[in-house]
Amino acid sequence: MCRWLAYSGTPIKLEELLVKRDRSLIDQSLHARQGATTTNGDGFGVGWYGEWETPAVFKSIEPAWNDRNLRELSGHIRSGLVFAHIRASTRTPVQQTNCHPFRRGRWLWMHNGSIARFHDLKRELLLAVDPSLYLDIEGSTDSEAFFFLALTLGLEDDPPGAVARAVGLIEQVGRAHGIEHPIQMTVATTDGTHIWAFRYSSEGRSRSLFFSTLVDTLRRQYPENPLFEQISDETRLVVSEPLGDLVGAWNEVPESSYGVIQEGQDELHPFTPRAPK
Amino acid sequence: MCRWLAYSGTPIKLEELLVKRDRSLIDQSLHARQGATTTNGDGFGVGWYGEWETPAVFKSIEPAWNDRNLRELSGHIRSGLVFAHIRASTRTPVQQTNCHPFRRGRWLWMHNGSIARFHDLKRELLLAVDPSLYLDIEGSTDSEAFFFLALTLGLEDDPPGAVARAVGLIEQVGRAHGIEHPIQMTVATTDGTHIWAFRYSSEGRSRSLFFSTLVDTLRRQYPENPLFEQISDETRLVVSEPLGDLVGAWNEVPESSYGVIQEGQDELHPFTPRAPK
Amino acid sequence: MCRWLAYSGTPIKLEELLVKRDRSLIDQSLHARQGATTTNGDGFGVGWYGEWETPAVFKSIEPAWNDRNLRELSGHIRSGLVFAHIRASTRTPVQQTNCHPFRRGRWLWMHNGSIARFHDLKRELLLAVDPSLYLDIEGSTDSEAFFFLALTLGLEDDPPGAVARAVGLIEQVGRAHGIEHPIQMTVATTDGTHIWAFRYSSEGRSRSLFFSTLVDTLRRQYPENPLFEQISDETRLVVSEPLGDLVGAWNEVPESSYGVIQEGQDELHPFTPRAPK
Amino acid sequence: MCRWLAYSGTPIKLEELLVKRDRSLIDQSLHARQGATTTNGDGFGVGWYGEWETPAVFKSIEPAWNDRNLRELSGHIRSGLVFAHIRASTRTPVQQTNCHPFRRGRWLWMHNGSIARFHDLKRELLLAVDPSLYLDIEGSTDSEAFFFLALTLGLEDDPPGAVARAVGLIEQVGRAHGIEHPIQMTVATTDGTHIWAFRYSSEGRSRSLFFSTLVDTLRRQYPENPLFEQISDETRLVVSEPLGDLVGAWNEVPESSYGVIQEGQDELHPFTPRAPK
Repeated sequence: MCRWLAYSGTPIKLEELLVKRDRSLIDQSLHARQGATTTNGDGFGVGWYGEWETPAVFKSIEPAWNDRNLRELSGHIRSGLVFAHIRASTRTPVQQTNCHPFRRGRWLWMHNGSIARFHDLKRELLLAVDPSLYLDIEGSTDSEAFFFLALTLGLEDDPPGAVARAVGLIEQVGRAHGIEHPIQMTVATTDGTHIWAFRYSSEGRSRSLFFSTLVDTLRRQYPENPLFEQISDETRLVVSEPLGDLVGAWNEVPESSYGVIQEGQDELHPFTPRAPK
Repeated sequence: MCRWLAYSGTPIKLEELLVKRDRSLIDQSLHARQGATTTNGDGFGVGWYGEWETPAVFKSIEPAWNDRNLRELSGHIRSGLVFAHIRASTRTPVQQTNCHPFRRGRWLWMHNGSIARFHDLKRELLLAVDPSLYLDIEGSTDSEAFFFLALTLGLEDDPPGAVARAVGLIEQVGRAHGIEHPIQMTVATTDGTHIWAFRYSSEGRSRSLFFSTLVDTLRRQYPENPLFEQISDETRLVVSEPLGDLVGAWNEVPESSYGVIQEGQDELHPFTPRAPK
Repeated sequence: MCRWLAYSGTPIKLEELLVKRDRSLIDQSLHARQGATTTNGDGFGVGWYGEWETPAVFKSIEPAWNDRNLRELSGHIRSGLVFAHIRASTRTPVQQTNCHPFRRGRWLWMHNGSIARFHDLKRELLLAVDPSLYLDIEGSTDSEAFFFLALTLGLEDDPPGAVARAVGLIEQVGRAHGIEHPIQMTVATTDGTHIWAFRYSSEGRSRSLFFSTLVDTLRRQYPENPLFEQISDETRLVVSEPLGDLVGAWNEVPESSYGVIQEGQDELHPFTPRAPK
Repeated sequence: MCRWLAYSGTPIKLEELLVKRDRSLIDQSLHARQGATTTNGDGFGVGWYGEWETPAVFKSIEPAWNDRNLRELSGHIRSGLVFAHIRASTRTPVQQTNCHPFRRGRWLWMHNGSIARFHDLKRELLLAVDPSLYLDIEGSTDSEAFFFLALTLGLEDDPPGAVARAVGLIEQVGRAHGIEHPIQMTVATTDGTHIWAFRYSSEGRSRSLFFSTLVDTLRRQYPENPLFEQISDETRLVVSEPLGDLVGAWNEVPESSYGVIQEGQDELHPFTPRAPK
């Protein structure tokens, strides 16, 4: 229901990602082309890593396209690891505690999609959250519950495994309630050094997800574009919908897979939920 | 850039007008079909007359589709004269003082459209506002300045004449600044008993405006529809975009004209700006 | 931590209760004299009964003294049963879903005080909420959890008994966690015809609570005051802090007791928590 | 009616100034000791200079003590020149465009105090603003009008002279309207390198203003305090009310004077308004 982007690479002003280009995230908040809803005006959030261990998070319940503070901060903050999310809520209240990205310690988490009939599953899923973690749930969304399930199931030690177990649990609980397709998701999570990005849905028709092409490839393809000279080889964007129309700049992530953005070679793997026994 | 509706007739719950039907005003805030912009998420306002002389006005900078208080109030307030407006701003800040309808004493005013290059004309237009009125301007929009010009030029005594003089002045000032088409407008204003609704633009291609068909005609045309039994013959809606798809229910107001909704026969007249000498 | 008032009697404009007099609730939001905190600027809510079965609720996260919509509505809504609450939060987020009064069906609930170390008890207390009710908890406060415990334990059939059982449960759970004084409370709840108001704390030093004196008594005492001629004999206010300084107008509710405001003779009874077996 | 601080010196996290110490600015927003009002809950703003020419400004209409984004940003932004302001409005609306500091290009401006009967003087004062500047006035406060008068009268070339001329004009216009004491002010303004701070009022009883003592003096006086080892000799704070209770740390600025914080020796001069001829 939402839109998000994850950026890793040469530190840049946030406005380069959020404001400045055609089909920027703020532009998408008004007119998304590939989303399930065309307006994402139900709040937004931006998380970024700077000189301190814990990332900063700025959230607002105003539509992103109106928020003056977002434009101000975007023009005055530089970061090499940025998460940004614009929300389109259907049921849960529009309040800061329901805006992504969610944070715990060094970790950030954001989600596009939903847990089907979350209202009916909520109590059972929250009971599966570790009691010591449970206390820190602040909002009422399926996405935050999903984050806390992943934390409970080992996110900080094994992100792909923890997400596989959380999705397996959600599908198990959902199906026990007669839900055919319990989850629809693209998810990004990071500890400040790696980014893990997942694309999956129980029905096998997941929301879109794209990785930017290797900067090196883009440089050879567009030798005249100065942007590609300024950013490092390691720079990478993961987005729910492409920013801009540059041919060859975006690669769709396959169904049921996840990628890892990291120093050195990035990775792409199949993703399979793992139900608890 | 905006959407509005004006209702006069049998007192009804606001939610009948704002929430309940397909293509209601709240629905239009997300997906307007005939507006210049498709999202009207930059605040809204509702004004209504009850048992007291002065109308109540409720305004919010949240998108109308998200505002819980709007839904609450709509379900618990009944009125026979309602103005409602959803805003799509391009330049002026999203703040309550910029939301329509504007009020002065018993009068309400709302506007869809704009004064071209208002930023350049603002000082000159505000200088033309009566100094004793000037002090009560609270926001920074062209629409509120237009209201105060109309008040200065006699709105309370002769609404059509005052609006004609205000538009004449705006066109004169605009053209002195080299602006070909200084104003684009549909406007509604009321003193709590009559409603005056104007459609005009300097270029002769004005934003849409519709009057509901006479209730009596609708009753004969749709004898099976219970709604038309409950509302009085005098009930009338004026809207920037039709609510619902009922064939024959809506009549487009002609270019350069204005209507008067009142007890007894409503009226429709041509509208011609009158420049000051 | 908060301030509240409950009004039952001759229908009056909300502003008579909330705005107009010295030491009105809005005045108290800035300068409470008897509260544990002197500023109650963390949101507010007003609930009132009109011509429909379900009460309306208006909530805002702005300080009450700034909220223009509150002043507007207060001047244009009349009701014979009003709950109003101003909040001073220490820990839980300032968001509409955390503002009182809470509503379910015809019922309203508001609370001044707190459940000690609620963060530690939250999971256990929420587990005691009926699963079918649990789904409708929207916020994250102790006060809403308390309301849902009371609903689970029979509020709609036996309000004093349900509150006694809910308090008994909270004290039992709290003491199992080593908390000496688990609850501090004044609570008001209503079904639209009766109001029940409770004063209690585990330590026996509860926040203040006052009933207005019988109108008939006030009329004899102040024969020259026109206000007492206009309101019915049945009119009654319950407040966490007196409004105005009229000698003899306010009676402090004793420790560990509750009152019932109803047609005919009001009642005052001792209140004793009842722990579950 | 407000509180403010201006910081210049060793770059520090904003939270050191705004959050962390007893009687910090956020603490003062709830409980100011020397202000004319004890609660400053009507919005706030923070401006700071970073690696770019133009300062960033973050403003919110929530009370500072509640604003989660303020706490987040304060913990993740470091700056060597910071302006912060908390507002207590009496009349003008609580909206972002009325929050201080105001900005134009590289310049910031904030004000504690008021222009007496501004409502009556507004039109005449705004007419004195240069028409090309007038267009950029966004809000409706006396403080922003004062800023634009100072800009009109040469702030960017001669700050003390421009402020003297602006105050002279305000006093002249005010007295022509029969106002005995037209202005009450402490003002801070900066171009990103110097800070000018003024204390003045027409009646000669101005709101409080304090400069921090020279760091070097503090080091000798408190040899055991590690804070004074970390900040440079040039570090200086100007505040409307002292932060913390350290004896000897604060010097009251005399009536009718202004100071200049700059590289090298700071300055203190008498301030005399200069009426236009």
